[in-house]
Amino acid sequence: MSDNFIKSKAAIAWGPNEPLSIEEVDVMLPKKGEVLVKVVASGVCHTDAFTLSGEDPEGVFPTILGHEGGGIVEQVGEGVTSVQVGDHVIPLYTAECGVCKMCRSGKTNLCSAVRETQGKGLMPDGTTRFYKDGKPIYHYMGCSTFSEYTVLPEISLAKVNKEAPLEEVCLLGCGVTTGMGAVMNTAKVEEGATVAIFGLGGIGLSAIIGAQMAKASRIIAIDINESKFELAKKLGATDCINPKNYDKPIQDVIVELTDGGVDYSFECIGNVDVMRSALECCHKGWGESVIIGVAGAGQEISTRPFQLVTGRVWKGSAFGGVKGRSELPGYVERYLAGEIPLQDFITHTMPLEDINEAFDLMHKGESIRSVVHFSE
Amino acid sequence: MSDNFIKSKAAIAWGPNEPLSIEEVDVMLPKKGEVLVKVVASGVCHTDAFTLSGEDPEGVFPTILGHEGGGIVEQVGEGVTSVQVGDHVIPLYTAECGVCKMCRSGKTNLCSAVRETQGKGLMPDGTTRFYKDGKPIYHYMGCSTFSEYTVLPEISLAKVNKEAPLEEVCLLGCGVTTGMGAVMNTAKVEEGATVAIFGLGGIGLSAIIGAQMAKASRIIAIDINESKFELAKKLGATDCINPKNYDKPIQDVIVELTDGGVDYSFECIGNVDVMRSALECCHKGWGESVIIGVAGAGQEISTRPFQLVTGRVWKGSAFGGVKGRSELPGYVERYLAGEIPLQDFITHTMPLEDINEAFDLMHKGESIRSVVHFSE
Repeated sequence: MSDNFIKSKAAIAWGPNEPLSIEEVDVMLPKKGEVLVKVVASGVCHTDAFTLSGEDPEGVFPTILGHEGGGIVEQVGEGVTSVQVGDHVIPLYTAECGVCKMCRSGKTNLCSAVRETQGKGLMPDGTTRFYKDGKPIYHYMGCSTFSEYTVLPEISLAKVNKEAPLEEVCLLGCGVTTGMGAVMNTAKVEEGATVAIFGLGGIGLSAIIGAQMAKASRIIAIDINESKFELAKKLGATDCINPKNYDKPIQDVIVELTDGGVDYSFECIGNVDVMRSALECCHKGWGESVIIGVAGAGQEISTRPFQLVTGRVWKGSAFGGVKGRSELPGYVERYLAGEIPLQDFITHTMPLEDINEAFDLMHKGESIRSVVHFSE
Repeated sequence: MSDNFIKSKAAIAWGPNEPLSIEEVDVMLPKKGEVLVKVVASGVCHTDAFTLSGEDPEGVFPTILGHEGGGIVEQVGEGVTSVQVGDHVIPLYTAECGVCKMCRSGKTNLCSAVRETQGKGLMPDGTTRFYKDGKPIYHYMGCSTFSEYTVLPEISLAKVNKEAPLEEVCLLGCGVTTGMGAVMNTAKVEEGATVAIFGLGGIGLSAIIGAQMAKASRIIAIDINESKFELAKKLGATDCINPKNYDKPIQDVIVELTDGGVDYSFECIGNVDVMRSALECCHKGWGESVIIGVAGAGQEISTRPFQLVTGRVWKGSAFGGVKGRSELPGYVERYLAGEIPLQDFITHTMPLEDINEAFDLMHKGESIRSVVHFSE
């Protein structure tokens, strides 16, 4: 460790659609209000792939991707009080400062404190902490967990129970919390409700867990990849449907199956046509549809306004509406209590060096989650 | 009165875009569960004009329009128990049976009991009660208040306080309740909230009253017809904005005016582009937009899903979410208590014979509401 930098192994994304390159980077030590985290493990999420594809309007290169990590505090900057060296933490791409207009509203988890710089791939002071041969590398979603060492603002770290294995609870840093939270926080699904979940990736499967925890009476899982159905059923789905097996729109199929439509639906893909189906399969008068998936730049959702005038509600959810520092530690406790079967999501583990394989498995639909780990 | 029919003066719409024709029609006496109502007065609403234009996919001709009436029970059919001869009633285009799945849900006012036949211009038994020279004339929205006598199902009548002048409270049969209810029932605007209201016809102005009753801190009224601004301000608008005075989209103007957007917005026109503006002028994280206006057949709303994922909510409202038989009488009481200035809405009154003038005034934007009355 030099005076100002620490060497770190990292997977660099030099440009859109290029394989990640494993290299040694220089990580600048934490400044005031910042924390150096040693990443233990990181899930590989569709959003990483989305940005790598070049479709993400906020995507900047070169960058170090990864936003679903678990790590240990290695060093704290000046003034940091909420975490200390040795604490186990989950990096948050949605910070929680507690004092901005958004945090004070009590109505949203979308803290605005570091949003602007984070969207540009920078730390709150407008600079980066990653360098390769003296040239800056951008941060990603404020996390960059595909680096053995990364720097985050203090307000972007959830301190969690040390008993929880970071190789598993890293998944609570994005996908699993996003799906469960959308069901429990955003939609507030109640006991006995009927639910439709579109897309059985990590988020959709997590939404199933949320619906099962909420004691939904019927959980309809929809995907064109039937290999996902077994796990969906294990997690609580009561019906699994492949839209390709029907001649009519899937929303019509679901409306018929449920005597008028479901009480709640969730779009967990990022496909604007599916978002429409998810809305229109809701019951007239009260059905609510929650968009979780992230659509490509410039894409738009559409429907006839009659769908809303007759009582359906269209909303969305980011990070499950979960406030990271105040609520995420509770998710870790629920995991420790055996309520959240994270192990079912981890289909592959590999060292960082093999991270491109994780992207390949995802694109082929062969993984739920791959978790990369950093060997000592 | 013959054994089975009563003669009635009525304004018949023979076809799209034709002037209404004042004629004498035969009205069949009420069957089981039905009520004959002597209409005293009826507002002329944009929805009547919409159907007359031929744009309404449910519009059938020939028909007797009118759905914003006030009248007196003239005769009751077999088994009718909730109203009796002489009661003052407001016809409901949204019935309230109390026993269908929708009514029992407690979550919506969209009773399904008579919806199917009503949408076809017929009574629940699939036939009409209006005849001209022996040929059937269709009902309209289950009300047909442009006839001196009309027949409705018992479940489509709100019995109201006889002290209220029917020439004024007829407006509670549609527009005023729709606007106020959308604010108070659908959006549940709370004290101190900021509100934007798009379109200052009868519904938009009523939404202003609702927002003012809810003690909204700021009520921004938007219209391209500035002659509406004086009344809007009188009713409680704090800001009146004409989008034509700006070079940028009106949603951007409102976002700037309100430090990030309003808490609630209401579309009271039926224009799908304005529906988008109304959504997008809402505050990130919690802003809710309610569609009240009815768009033309086949028209669609669109936006980027990011608008919803970042916490905005898109919903709609029909008849203000108000359950007609159980809640509308309370609106009449609020009117009697001086809380609802219906007289401000009535810019013109005329006998039924001059009803085409009411449509002309509406098309020219020169009226808020014209009320036609039936001379003895």
